[in-house]
Amino acid sequence: MGGFLFVNINEMGSLSMSTNHSLVEAFKKTKYQLAGHGPKDIQTLKATFEDVDGQLGSDIYGKGKIIEDFQNKLAKYLGKEEAAFFPSGTMAQQIALRIWCDQKGIKKVAYHPFCHLEIHEEDGLKELHHIEPILLADKESVIQLEDVLGMKDKIACLLLELPQREIGGQLPDYDTLESISAYCKEKGIRLHLDGARLFEILPYYQKTAAEISQLFDSVYVSFYKGIGGVAGAILAGDKAFIEESKVWKRRHGGDLISLYPYIISSDYYFDKRINKMEQYYAEAQELAHLFNSCKGVSTKPLVPVSNMFHVHFDLPKEKVEAIFIDLYTATGIGFTHNPRQMSGLTCYFEVSIGDAYEKIPKEELRNAFKMLDERIRS
Amino acid sequence: MGGFLFVNINEMGSLSMSTNHSLVEAFKKTKYQLAGHGPKDIQTLKATFEDVDGQLGSDIYGKGKIIEDFQNKLAKYLGKEEAAFFPSGTMAQQIALRIWCDQKGIKKVAYHPFCHLEIHEEDGLKELHHIEPILLADKESVIQLEDVLGMKDKIACLLLELPQREIGGQLPDYDTLESISAYCKEKGIRLHLDGARLFEILPYYQKTAAEISQLFDSVYVSFYKGIGGVAGAILAGDKAFIEESKVWKRRHGGDLISLYPYIISSDYYFDKRINKMEQYYAEAQELAHLFNSCKGVSTKPLVPVSNMFHVHFDLPKEKVEAIFIDLYTATGIGFTHNPRQMSGLTCYFEVSIGDAYEKIPKEELRNAFKMLDERIRS
Repeated sequence: MGGFLFVNINEMGSLSMSTNHSLVEAFKKTKYQLAGHGPKDIQTLKATFEDVDGQLGSDIYGKGKIIEDFQNKLAKYLGKEEAAFFPSGTMAQQIALRIWCDQKGIKKVAYHPFCHLEIHEEDGLKELHHIEPILLADKESVIQLEDVLGMKDKIACLLLELPQREIGGQLPDYDTLESISAYCKEKGIRLHLDGARLFEILPYYQKTAAEISQLFDSVYVSFYKGIGGVAGAILAGDKAFIEESKVWKRRHGGDLISLYPYIISSDYYFDKRINKMEQYYAEAQELAHLFNSCKGVSTKPLVPVSNMFHVHFDLPKEKVEAIFIDLYTATGIGFTHNPRQMSGLTCYFEVSIGDAYEKIPKEELRNAFKMLDERIRS
Repeated sequence: MGGFLFVNINEMGSLSMSTNHSLVEAFKKTKYQLAGHGPKDIQTLKATFEDVDGQLGSDIYGKGKIIEDFQNKLAKYLGKEEAAFFPSGTMAQQIALRIWCDQKGIKKVAYHPFCHLEIHEEDGLKELHHIEPILLADKESVIQLEDVLGMKDKIACLLLELPQREIGGQLPDYDTLESISAYCKEKGIRLHLDGARLFEILPYYQKTAAEISQLFDSVYVSFYKGIGGVAGAILAGDKAFIEESKVWKRRHGGDLISLYPYIISSDYYFDKRINKMEQYYAEAQELAHLFNSCKGVSTKPLVPVSNMFHVHFDLPKEKVEAIFIDLYTATGIGFTHNPRQMSGLTCYFEVSIGDAYEKIPKEELRNAFKMLDERIRS
């Protein structure tokens, strides 16, 4: 199982300051895991290329059938005029905000305090684009209409992340989205969607991706979250916006001679998993219920609105890790390899449901939770 | 032969304004080609993964065995303290110059008028990093010591591209390199090597990559030129420089969750072709001689100093294309699919020797050149 993560991918490569190696080892030996799509190994790529004709020509610097077909497919899926494939969401989103700022002649945008651009990108937006972010809403809440109405600064663009990942994947009401969208349109503020997990929220809203996207001027989606691809992102919007984004892609060094390893795998896993989002959503609710039935354990949100949620323990990290090591060994089910310490002697971890969950026999899963509850109480 | 390029990859994806489709079609039907490693198709990637264990774990945001092993291997090969893998040279080089400018507190660098950063990157260096380039030397000549000595501006860094690709892959004398390096060291000017084709010039200089690299503070090398990989670059330098380059890689959006498709293929083709550079160099000289034996045809340089050179025809592009279409059909050997018009009714194209050349039977090659010469004279 060489492909299990030794690092916490939730925080983009930053090694947890206190990785418990015994826990990681115990986790690696488990037969089943609650979260994800299985080991992050190179088989993920190999599998996608097995049935593709080797004589298929590479994309060349953004041109060619492979990249154009996928861009057209996603533009259509998202109900936007055009789309561009990017190696990363980090690149795609900075560029989207830059274009809107340039267009408006205002170097300010607004987003949530836990926005990916604010906490995971080494301040690329500020260092490369000199754009100042206005932080909207309380850290633990999603952005509401009042937050937008209450803004004093003049901004070029508002970014909404759906779901708000760092607080367990919370969502505003759909009405709120519509109100914010209408307000932005009225005020000439561009609205950008950080849809890294857009596919994952469609079952909750009971909307199509295109219906949600039409509330936004620009949309970014990712192919290695719920879709489980290797890497890559799509940015979608109107024709002029996408054309300009390609110029910025070249400037950022993202206009590679060949992006097909990411495009072919993104397309493969998109087709394979796009219709499983309803299942992941239902499973997340089922699993959250199991967690919430244990003493001193609660999920955020209490009832998930996507395939993801956070699990909070009213116990110190070390205590939880000791319980988990025993639990993994006894049941063969891995819950997490990396709980994170919170202030006040509590800890939490993130769960994102993928293909791994359906493989766990229900009886064994119930037994594991029974054991977990007993160990917490003992 | 779906993998043949319809676009001119020499100019980074910009379609030639006057692509001759009959020529492209005739070229696609040829059995042999003078330049390159064969079709640019996805088999290039598939071949590298065939013998790799699918359970091998992915690199994760710059961490993990796959990426660290390759970085260490190239750092050692280049005689530098550390190395970082980048998705592209565009990203790696802008970052290198930015770090040196920040360190010196001077937002100016110097490079050749045909530097990649000046003509192929949509002004990323200026738009993202606000660095002003000083253009050194005449367009048709490589940078000489006098050009450096004559600089009036105070610069943070000088970039040398070896070989100077856009003028046929010319090189300064090794003594010149040593003198420029010594001068920069004395003056506190950082010296950066655009070594996109560094491997390809080692046979001419009769130096190791490490010997050349030690003249420079930072070095970039590419894995899809002579090496023929899918994409990817290495930036090498001292530990502090490389650590900082990784922060900028994150900012640029190049710190992907998984870069292994490019790393594994770069490593595979590096091992496969690094010892073929002497052969490519000898073949380039042989082929240039054949061109120079034709009436009104000359190569730049006259005697190649790497695996590449330009071929200039004292004939208009349309005339050369008509000759080539007949030539390809009669001989099955493709010379180029994209000659470029020059002022004064002449045209030229680039040749970079790879694995394709050795497959051409010598007798057939000589006959093709005989026919070419006859057609030019007729």
